[in-house]
Amino acid sequence: MSKGITSRSEDYSQWYNDLVIKADLAENSAVRGCMVIKPYGYAIWERMQAILDKRFKETGHSNAYFPLFIPKSFFSKEASHVEGFATECAVVTHYRLKNDGSGNIVVDEEAKLEEELIVRPTSETIIWNTYKGWIESYRDLPILVNQWANVVRWEMRTRLFLRTAEFLWQEGHTAHATSEEAIAEAEQMLEVYADFAENTLAVPVVRGRKTENERFAGALDTFCIEALMQDGKALQAGTSHFLGQNFAKAFDVKFTSKEGKQEYVWATSWGVSTRLMGALIMAHSDDQGLVLPPKLAPIQVVIVPIYKTDEEKANIDGFVKNLQKELSGKDISVKYDDRDTQRPGFKFAEWELKGVPVRVAVGARDMQNGTVELARRDKQTKETVAQEDLANTIEVLLEDIQQHIYQKAIDFRASHTTEVNSYEEFKQVIEGKGGFVSCHWDGTVETEKRVKEETKATIRCIPLDAKEEEGVCIFTGKPSSRRVLFAKAY
Amino acid sequence: MSKGITSRSEDYSQWYNDLVIKADLAENSAVRGCMVIKPYGYAIWERMQAILDKRFKETGHSNAYFPLFIPKSFFSKEASHVEGFATECAVVTHYRLKNDGSGNIVVDEEAKLEEELIVRPTSETIIWNTYKGWIESYRDLPILVNQWANVVRWEMRTRLFLRTAEFLWQEGHTAHATSEEAIAEAEQMLEVYADFAENTLAVPVVRGRKTENERFAGALDTFCIEALMQDGKALQAGTSHFLGQNFAKAFDVKFTSKEGKQEYVWATSWGVSTRLMGALIMAHSDDQGLVLPPKLAPIQVVIVPIYKTDEEKANIDGFVKNLQKELSGKDISVKYDDRDTQRPGFKFAEWELKGVPVRVAVGARDMQNGTVELARRDKQTKETVAQEDLANTIEVLLEDIQQHIYQKAIDFRASHTTEVNSYEEFKQVIEGKGGFVSCHWDGTVETEKRVKEETKATIRCIPLDAKEEEGVCIFTGKPSSRRVLFAKAY
Repeated sequence: MSKGITSRSEDYSQWYNDLVIKADLAENSAVRGCMVIKPYGYAIWERMQAILDKRFKETGHSNAYFPLFIPKSFFSKEASHVEGFATECAVVTHYRLKNDGSGNIVVDEEAKLEEELIVRPTSETIIWNTYKGWIESYRDLPILVNQWANVVRWEMRTRLFLRTAEFLWQEGHTAHATSEEAIAEAEQMLEVYADFAENTLAVPVVRGRKTENERFAGALDTFCIEALMQDGKALQAGTSHFLGQNFAKAFDVKFTSKEGKQEYVWATSWGVSTRLMGALIMAHSDDQGLVLPPKLAPIQVVIVPIYKTDEEKANIDGFVKNLQKELSGKDISVKYDDRDTQRPGFKFAEWELKGVPVRVAVGARDMQNGTVELARRDKQTKETVAQEDLANTIEVLLEDIQQHIYQKAIDFRASHTTEVNSYEEFKQVIEGKGGFVSCHWDGTVETEKRVKEETKATIRCIPLDAKEEEGVCIFTGKPSSRRVLFAKAY
Repeated sequence: MSKGITSRSEDYSQWYNDLVIKADLAENSAVRGCMVIKPYGYAIWERMQAILDKRFKETGHSNAYFPLFIPKSFFSKEASHVEGFATECAVVTHYRLKNDGSGNIVVDEEAKLEEELIVRPTSETIIWNTYKGWIESYRDLPILVNQWANVVRWEMRTRLFLRTAEFLWQEGHTAHATSEEAIAEAEQMLEVYADFAENTLAVPVVRGRKTENERFAGALDTFCIEALMQDGKALQAGTSHFLGQNFAKAFDVKFTSKEGKQEYVWATSWGVSTRLMGALIMAHSDDQGLVLPPKLAPIQVVIVPIYKTDEEKANIDGFVKNLQKELSGKDISVKYDDRDTQRPGFKFAEWELKGVPVRVAVGARDMQNGTVELARRDKQTKETVAQEDLANTIEVLLEDIQQHIYQKAIDFRASHTTEVNSYEEFKQVIEGKGGFVSCHWDGTVETEKRVKEETKATIRCIPLDAKEEEGVCIFTGKPSSRRVLFAKAY
């Protein structure tokens, strides 16, 4: 099959788009900025959901569901929140269509809503309005709730998975009796995300804190995980917010403490979205197609028979049936691609494009020799191995692939993280090989904005593990006590 | 605890509302007609989703995701479809808010959409517009896709779970090369629903076909499952539609057949929604609260310790720890309610209200005697049983409860299904004990509408297993060859 994928070196952005389309992950829909997530792409997202959901539950959270619509007035109750989202809201104004008499379907102007409804861009306001009814005393706390939902932000420039008008995500919203407890929750969920990114997505991340300028609208503190893509640009892969008492005050949510006092409730929210699909694709894939870490691959092993006669095929079938059973017993997902409409070479290319981690090819001679050809997608290597104990061989190989993909991403990040001490150096790196640039910054929003204007690089985060270190801001020369990470970003 | 639930005999409708609220399943939100599904209610829905999703995949379907919004023009392409949904559509007209200068947040009139977007009430139109790009030849068929999503129908009179402006559902949308294959698919999915209703929800259902008048807007044939509630009213629990070539024609979706001809594609769609929560609640519960079939109960077993001293408590704890381990090993979900803030009687009432199928109470004397008190929610009986082999005893009991709840519902339906042969009898039953009324009907929409006007009863379905039988319409006296089922319905 002809893959028709632009190479990364030629045009990284086009490579990404080609890959998403050709690997059947997603496509643009007829609705501006909204995507269709195709079955193969959705299967990967479902695996992400299942693993994250399990971790949320293990950390004491329950799922619930809140309305898609938010009354406009709710939205305005938290000042910085409305400011952050007002410019990208889909607004419902009517609730009926009608036939205009000449056969055209038009909006029925008589069915105008008294108050416009916003399609949720995030749910803090509707949820805190609900929590008001759930919380009376400290006994009702903490509330540890998560929601899997669709949200809409009317972005003007969209890209499949990375930035779409509608996207899928989860949003955790928790309520606590103390500031300390809420901060601990926000930090805990950041670690859940970081662990998921590293051990499931095989994407190493920097755990950090956003600057004031990059904080979530309504948060006192935003924690984030930042990943590095192969083009040297950073991608924010998840955020966890300490919201203080901002939403409790906006919606008047108080509780009676153990000491009998009325106090405002402390909040967090945290989320990851289908954007993770973009991170996954861009972190590992190559010019031949997707490279999926085994833990997320909907198909972990594909088996392709190579034969000339029906007898040869029947012989191979018997072997494969057994192998499939053994692999399934190990919870390894396997597909036997015995379509007779395509040649082996076509199949090899197709599964390579779709990022299946392991390919087993087995032909008539293999059957005589008691061997198969085992190919790994990540290194694009293949070897002849024994049929005996093959399921175990594959199990070990899948673990090795997961590790190798992760290590490769760690190595890439290491070679694309640069410490600089002058603005000259800074610009050289940012405009050159890119990646994370670690440097001193004077802590002001003004400097951050100036640097962004001049270089398009933003402060991705103040790493949580950053050491105290005397230094001077590369831009203003003012004193600084800690390095931050700059990068161009998605 | 005081439960504050109205009894069924006093006011069935109020009993239902009380139950939904008091058992923490759902509540009305600040947005008209939209509900909040609370963690306990959502946990039941998650179990429904998991079981259904597994069955969809076993029958060859994959999940995908399509846009929330549908361009108004798409909606109008299938004539009967737009007619069916136009009067209850939420319409997005703008994509931005702004500050009006005096501090008010208002809709930015300059950010008006060129074409209004409808919040999906169902997705046939956007999906068939997408399928157009996926289908060229018979090799691309069938497409077997399902979507889990939220949908919006602007209902004027809403009730928690039963009829809400926004609800959660799944919608399957399949594309086939032949009419026969599409009909077989629609029938297969009806059977998946029926089996789920009976064997998981423990709700017996009649499998049937809707009359022309009650068909889905755009379908050639609508299959349905109809359940009976304790007040004698019917509830449509799921539908599966044979759409013919209507949507393929509306969106010009053709394929090249094996014979090289261009033909329109055949379609089905099928769905169940959070309405099933209403069916579940109303079919089994009683004046003391929820009665949940074990297969759907988020907590299947609750253990309540009864003690006076710390020593007694420690002794019980040891026993319970072991029991929990054994039950978890059998995939039985168990909660140990050892809150020291509530008395046992309060806990008993609370878990009774929440429908936990089995309660284990264990006190100091039980520990001496090697016994526990085992209570079953469905029959409200309790007995003293041995601690020895308790996990197995509970496992068997859970199966018995599932069966008993189902049998009780079957018996209720049998005693509330009446064959009548005259309109007098018909009215007596409909206005009396209610339930399903089996009778002859002349097959006309007019008669159906007249009967509905006079009695509020509608034809729930033409049962698939209805025998050929000579008879006369109870209303017009015209000849009829098959009985149909009438009932008042939710």
